[in-house]
Amino acid sequence: MKKIVVKPIGTIRTPYKTHQGMPIQGKFKPGVKGKAILFQKYAKGLKDLGGFSHAILLWHIHKSKEERLLSKPFMEDVIHGVFSTRSPHRPNHIGISIVKIENIKRNVITFSEVDMLDGTPLLDIKPYMAGVDTRENVRTGWAQKHLKKGRLPDRAIHDKGIT
Amino acid sequence: MKKIVVKPIGTIRTPYKTHQGMPIQGKFKPGVKGKAILFQKYAKGLKDLGGFSHAILLWHIHKSKEERLLSKPFMEDVIHGVFSTRSPHRPNHIGISIVKIENIKRNVITFSEVDMLDGTPLLDIKPYMAGVDTRENVRTGWAQKHLKKGRLPDRAIHDKGIT
Repeated sequence: MKKIVVKPIGTIRTPYKTHQGMPIQGKFKPGVKGKAILFQKYAKGLKDLGGFSHAILLWHIHKSKEERLLSKPFMEDVIHGVFSTRSPHRPNHIGISIVKIENIKRNVITFSEVDMLDGTPLLDIKPYMAGVDTRENVRTGWAQKHLKKGRLPDRAIHDKGIT
Repeated sequence: MKKIVVKPIGTIRTPYKTHQGMPIQGKFKPGVKGKAILFQKYAKGLKDLGGFSHAILLWHIHKSKEERLLSKPFMEDVIHGVFSTRSPHRPNHIGISIVKIENIKRNVITFSEVDMLDGTPLLDIKPYMAGVDTRENVRTGWAQKHLKKGRLPDRAIHDKGIT
């Protein structure tokens, strides 16, 4: 099976040294801020990103070495297939987060809606485009009961929301 | 710089042998169908994905070996930083697509909203969750003028829509 090599383009700094207090999705604890610090050589790739309110970050789920094809999502008490969950224990440890851009200075993006651990390797940044990245009439399977419109899921923050 | 190794979990089959006729985003040519064919060993990870209407596919942009920090997006006549575009010529060649799930049988997902070339290596599948993956009050910088609500961008299909 052909292997594909990717490389960090920078590092994500967040207040979350551990999972404690970290939301399972940044949207559920929006006020917390983080920084995406690109290696200097990539800084010019940020040109014009400041015109966008949100970005999609791809990052390496560096704290998991596990691959579980069936697992129990954070919000659930039953097991689901990994590809129907956002479990970190995936065949490829790539995470995605939609974050709100607060400001960009040279090689540093300050953002809110943080759901990564401090020190997470950054792999890519894509502009979030509502006209491209939203869908209507969406069914969300097992997650539907947890994600009622505008309501914070009961268990959306690790360890019951400390910090 | 630490390298990260990822591996295909399957192959994406689409009608697009070349870019001709392929939309820059699947949403702009929604009727076309493709298949995500997982290697058998990953099939059980699809359990319960059928309850979701849409999925986020991560894939290897295998036809680009280039890395351009500044480039001219498909819709534009001016140059932007790569991280404010969806250009394939990125430091890490990882693409993301939101697709509509048509059906799932064993190790095969049939989907619509196709924007990948035939033979594209599949890296990950995540369930699309409207409550998590949508944002409101979004600014889309240089793309705003092309993405007026509900309107197909003039140049959203490669080579003017030949199929």
